[in-house]
Amino acid sequence: MKAAKDLKFLFDPASIAVVGASDEPGKISSIIMDSILASNYGGRLYPINPAHSSVKGLECFPSIQAIGSVVDLAIFAVPAALVPGLIKDAAGNLKGAIVVSGGFGEGNGAGRAVDKELRDVIKKYKVRVVGPNCMGIYDAVSGLDTFFISPERIKRPVRGGISILSQSGSFALTAMDELAAEGLGVARVVSYGNMIDVNETDCLDFLTHDKATEVVVLYIESVEDGRRFVESASRCSRQKQVMALKAGRAGAGISAALLHTGALAGRFEIYRAAFKKASIIEINGYEEFIEGCKVLTMQKRSAGKRVIIITDGGGVGVAVADACVVMGLDVAPLPKKIKETLGAGFPGFVALGNPLDLTGSATDKWYADSLTECLKGVDYDLAIVCALWGPPSLTDALAELLAKSAGAAGKPVVICSPGGDYTRARKRLFEDKGLPVFSTPEAAVRAASVLTRG
Amino acid sequence: MKAAKDLKFLFDPASIAVVGASDEPGKISSIIMDSILASNYGGRLYPINPAHSSVKGLECFPSIQAIGSVVDLAIFAVPAALVPGLIKDAAGNLKGAIVVSGGFGEGNGAGRAVDKELRDVIKKYKVRVVGPNCMGIYDAVSGLDTFFISPERIKRPVRGGISILSQSGSFALTAMDELAAEGLGVARVVSYGNMIDVNETDCLDFLTHDKATEVVVLYIESVEDGRRFVESASRCSRQKQVMALKAGRAGAGISAALLHTGALAGRFEIYRAAFKKASIIEINGYEEFIEGCKVLTMQKRSAGKRVIIITDGGGVGVAVADACVVMGLDVAPLPKKIKETLGAGFPGFVALGNPLDLTGSATDKWYADSLTECLKGVDYDLAIVCALWGPPSLTDALAELLAKSAGAAGKPVVICSPGGDYTRARKRLFEDKGLPVFSTPEAAVRAASVLTRG
Repeated sequence: MKAAKDLKFLFDPASIAVVGASDEPGKISSIIMDSILASNYGGRLYPINPAHSSVKGLECFPSIQAIGSVVDLAIFAVPAALVPGLIKDAAGNLKGAIVVSGGFGEGNGAGRAVDKELRDVIKKYKVRVVGPNCMGIYDAVSGLDTFFISPERIKRPVRGGISILSQSGSFALTAMDELAAEGLGVARVVSYGNMIDVNETDCLDFLTHDKATEVVVLYIESVEDGRRFVESASRCSRQKQVMALKAGRAGAGISAALLHTGALAGRFEIYRAAFKKASIIEINGYEEFIEGCKVLTMQKRSAGKRVIIITDGGGVGVAVADACVVMGLDVAPLPKKIKETLGAGFPGFVALGNPLDLTGSATDKWYADSLTECLKGVDYDLAIVCALWGPPSLTDALAELLAKSAGAAGKPVVICSPGGDYTRARKRLFEDKGLPVFSTPEAAVRAASVLTRG
Repeated sequence: MKAAKDLKFLFDPASIAVVGASDEPGKISSIIMDSILASNYGGRLYPINPAHSSVKGLECFPSIQAIGSVVDLAIFAVPAALVPGLIKDAAGNLKGAIVVSGGFGEGNGAGRAVDKELRDVIKKYKVRVVGPNCMGIYDAVSGLDTFFISPERIKRPVRGGISILSQSGSFALTAMDELAAEGLGVARVVSYGNMIDVNETDCLDFLTHDKATEVVVLYIESVEDGRRFVESASRCSRQKQVMALKAGRAGAGISAALLHTGALAGRFEIYRAAFKKASIIEINGYEEFIEGCKVLTMQKRSAGKRVIIITDGGGVGVAVADACVVMGLDVAPLPKKIKETLGAGFPGFVALGNPLDLTGSATDKWYADSLTECLKGVDYDLAIVCALWGPPSLTDALAELLAKSAGAAGKPVVICSPGGDYTRARKRLFEDKGLPVFSTPEAAVRAASVLTRG
């Protein structure tokens, strides 16, 4: 038996064994069993526990060998010291494992010894391992879910095109929960933890050929084989949108990342250069992670940085322009030709500049006409449209009209719509038509900026 | 009659005349009448319109003179060209005016002439004027409300300690609506527009002595008399928290601000120096405007920049640490003494660093004990506590325990709690106890940073 290189059996296993399974509520293996049973998982599920004959209504086996056939994936949520022995016992009957347990190399003393033992065992018996010290895999395609937090606390996103590879479990969990609340869908989410075997690059290779994945987002504390990562990421970014966040910016961050997974986070600039070489979109921080997921799912990349800002409120337009300056977007002056064309149709108090301020007298049609006119030529690469709902002439039809203009232009458009209840209730109108909405000027500009990077 | 210097009659007028009032729904003067009638305004309200004998059930007067007594405040939402004549006609009977109408100096040609005429009239007849081209005043203390957008679209905040002075109407409106949704209360909100008379400094002088105002926030595009502004702001910042946002950062912003209110925005750095001289907290952008309002309302200023980060998720802790590095906060290493004290009570897998990672096994008590221990000595000035709700041992009692620790320490604490539905529903638990919650690592760090500035 050779260690498998195609990791499909980890994401879409024909059979899953949950080691240490029981009916006890709140226990990690119990939560994992519940999640898989509640999902659309269509393969065989085996509880493993010598103390029980049945768990959650399924026949329970004393060991993996006792199943009597090769199992694609075993999930280990048992004390670290037990894991190497259990994998050894399953030798020949097990292709892959997700070890969620902590207490390996990220600790010290006893943990280090168990870590070495686990490395030796999986090498000898050709078992591919995700983890240890991780949340494992949430796979909205296959129904696999080893994220051992109850869905009451952390919601699982619907199925969609985003796949997340994260060295941090808490980051992956929090992002998933936030994406679920935003209505954004995922394909595969991996928290790979200490990566004694399967790492970000192995997963990238899998996602490159994965039809379910359209956007790949990485949260990286450290990469061990930089050359292989850049090669793999370059292949992936030729076919999909790839974003990456390098955590651990400086002294403080490095020390935190070191404590967290036991890996020394490399220097920030080296990662930036690697991302650039691999044509990966670099993102900065949690906000851009979430905003990037949304904007890349809903909009295409921008051909350049020249942005037209259309608003019905001067101050909010200025705030967007200021954020563009900070983020390096080009708030190019409104060309004379567009001023003349729009000026012929608008009252004199409309401020024909960039921002283009339609004022509190703005109508749905003014917005749509402005967007069409500004994007149709070669002057602008993308648009940020501020939809402030104060103007009484604006109606819910605005979203559809803007979506039509944006679609006809074939250029990216993001909506900036800050405010309270009335405004927040209208977000869905735009997003149902494919226009991503951001609730602050800065968030809209960060999202627009993501589209111009890489 | 001398022009009044104390602007109390503008914010808390004993009598208000609404010029051009009618019962027509949707008309600006009608919305303003409705808002005042629905508020707690306890003074006399006079509709003015020669075409009606009653409006909204109140006796309607043909002119301000016809009222027969001096009116504190007249609100003008009529065409620009009519305003100077109407104020002239009211000479001797009118102390102040809010002119919401546009079409004055921010335009050109005819607008410039009317602007000059209005300036001459109010100087001659000693009438103090807010505007023109503004939303005017929303005063949660007196009930005055000239923000002529229906509360269905833009909610009014409850009464509280924040007062906002904004050169931009759309910025003030949007911020108000957002503060209302966040449950934050305001005292006085002024959109002063073209400021042909009353400007930011006049309002600052009023707010300095206003008992209802605890926090002053300014949105500034340009200041005409810098010396007077710095003097006034210095007086105010000795008694209250004062934050200011300078809009119009660079080429793009300047041009937008110029188009917006007709004032040339000065160079950014000059304003930064002025803010510093006046001990004003400088804020950058809309996000910090809102976050600053929340954090200054709920927490005291920090004595320094040394921050302890306490988390139950490593990756989110690293994200906070990274944002601290970017924002200039000092993520000072955890002192040996605190390590020893906390280490004696915690299991070995708790990562005793900064961030202090309590891991997914965190309990309410671990959080409270850590916060108490880290803040009680001289090592840290403030804390950012990441509350991720995955760990099953965390309960809703966490908020109260943390609030007690924070209260005992007497140092500022902000909560970072990113996530979806379960997490968002718990925000109120913390904020009811006086701990401000921010939904991203970057937002929590921006807020913490605001507390360390100035």
